Amino acid sequence: MYTTETQIRIHYALTDQMGVVYHGHYAQFYEIGRTESIRQLGFTYKDIEAMGIIMPVIDIHSKFLRPAKYDDLITVKTTLRELPQHHRIIFHSEIYNEKDELLNVGDVTLYFMIANGMKRCDMPDVFREKLQGYFPV
Amino acid sequence: MYTTETQIRIHYALTDQMGVVYHGHYAQFYEIGRTESIRQLGFTYKDIEAMGIIMPVIDIHSKFLRPAKYDDLITVKTTLRELPQHHRIIFHSEIYNEKDELLNVGDVTLYFMIANGMKRCDMPDVFREKLQGYFPV
Amino acid sequence: MYTTETQIRIHYALTDQMGVVYHGHYAQFYEIGRTESIRQLGFTYKDIEAMGIIMPVIDIHSKFLRPAKYDDLITVKTTLRELPQHHRIIFHSEIYNEKDELLNVGDVTLYFMIANGMKRCDMPDVFREKLQGYFPV
Amino acid sequence: MYTTETQIRIHYALTDQMGVVYHGHYAQFYEIGRTESIRQLGFTYKDIEAMGIIMPVIDIHSKFLRPAKYDDLITVKTTLRELPQHHRIIFHSEIYNEKDELLNVGDVTLYFMIANGMKRCDMPDVFREKLQGYFPV
Repeated sequence: MYTTETQIRIHYALTDQMGVVYHGHYAQFYEIGRTESIRQLGFTYKDIEAMGIIMPVIDIHSKFLRPAKYDDLITVKTTLRELPQHHRIIFHSEIYNEKDELLNVGDVTLYFMIANGMKRCDMPDVFREKLQGYFPV
Repeated sequence: MYTTETQIRIHYALTDQMGVVYHGHYAQFYEIGRTESIRQLGFTYKDIEAMGIIMPVIDIHSKFLRPAKYDDLITVKTTLRELPQHHRIIFHSEIYNEKDELLNVGDVTLYFMIANGMKRCDMPDVFREKLQGYFPV
Repeated sequence: MYTTETQIRIHYALTDQMGVVYHGHYAQFYEIGRTESIRQLGFTYKDIEAMGIIMPVIDIHSKFLRPAKYDDLITVKTTLRELPQHHRIIFHSEIYNEKDELLNVGDVTLYFMIANGMKRCDMPDVFREKLQGYFPV
Repeated sequence: MYTTETQIRIHYALTDQMGVVYHGHYAQFYEIGRTESIRQLGFTYKDIEAMGIIMPVIDIHSKFLRPAKYDDLITVKTTLRELPQHHRIIFHSEIYNEKDELLNVGDVTLYFMIANGMKRCDMPDVFREKLQGYFPV
């Protein structure tokens, strides 16, 4: 299992007139979480794109338990529960507020694809090698 | 079953550097679809809020089949497959491009809640009465 | 002078916790207004990009007079006051609500640039020809 | 003069298909900059709203010099050049990339207003007292 944490401060643009964060913005929090999760492995999603591989989102499932509010400093806890075998990777996200209350849970499935031609491909070696230590056989 | 259709033109702000609509924006398309779906019943979600009832999103599940692109005129087909029994309502959305290709499928679950105190409540009568004809016993 | 009008329905995602449209979203309304303004000339901004020319925004000035609110059907009135001479084009936008109250005024300056190499260029001929009739000498 | 700096990492949602940050998102960067600028005085914009005072944006002027790109770590330098006298406050923002290139300049004018009734008011005392030391007579 590979888990990282990132913090995000909620700014005004993310709120709606219910006085809470608009539900549609959580996909961005998951994105920020997994980007930082990759960065902490020692390379970046930008590096992956520079290799000609992109990772489009294929599926998202979000559960909204409690609302995040303006100026909250939320923590996005991002977890890979399994080492990807082929072209598919699933990031699990949990979002907490400063009281450590669980606000939101999201599962985001992405594919590895060769940008030129949009064919599915395996996870890049650099990615697999960095992750392997977190998933002992 | 109650089904309506709404069209949305994709503007630049919705695209990302993959050259397609950013995945996080589809939640807004579902929102626009269900808002227009309610409007076609003869009242509005704004009217519901004016009655002191809000409809927070509790759960979203999105599948991304094909990307929407800049300047596409997409059609959001919004369906209620069941008449809500209590505080829960599920809108099913299908998003098509101008070639009638299915791009995206989303299921959004919302609760009816009394804004003052945030307690769950039943679907407002005005809403139920308008819908009932679409769900013959 | 060349003027067109477009309508936009305000959805929830555009509101903030002040109960009005977040100020940062008006740039999108200007964008939608000028895109439709170009479309009504008989071609599209997408066509311009397909010709290898892009139109980055160089300057925006916005004045906020009254707030737009949830579910408002706003009208974006987009005007070219002068026929562009070289690489610069200025769109003037006025945004009105359904009571015909002026909510917002924006001036957006864009450049015509050759995407490949990012050099400034003149307005494409197709664009100039369509506009010329609106600017008699 | 009172100046602070904040850093923002550009995530994918902020890019558009030109491969740069969508121009309409800079208003959010100014917002984040001035919010952190207030926080560094020892209170928050949230505290101001809790006092019944809101600060709507009245005017924005943005100049776009160079684009911010995906994964850039931009620095928002936020400056108050004058101590506000009455109900008006102007934040000047400069945005730099990691090479210290100036990308964008923005001037945002806001009013202090009593939320209940929407009348203009003077800057709250707590705010003025914290700022005064930065503006010697």
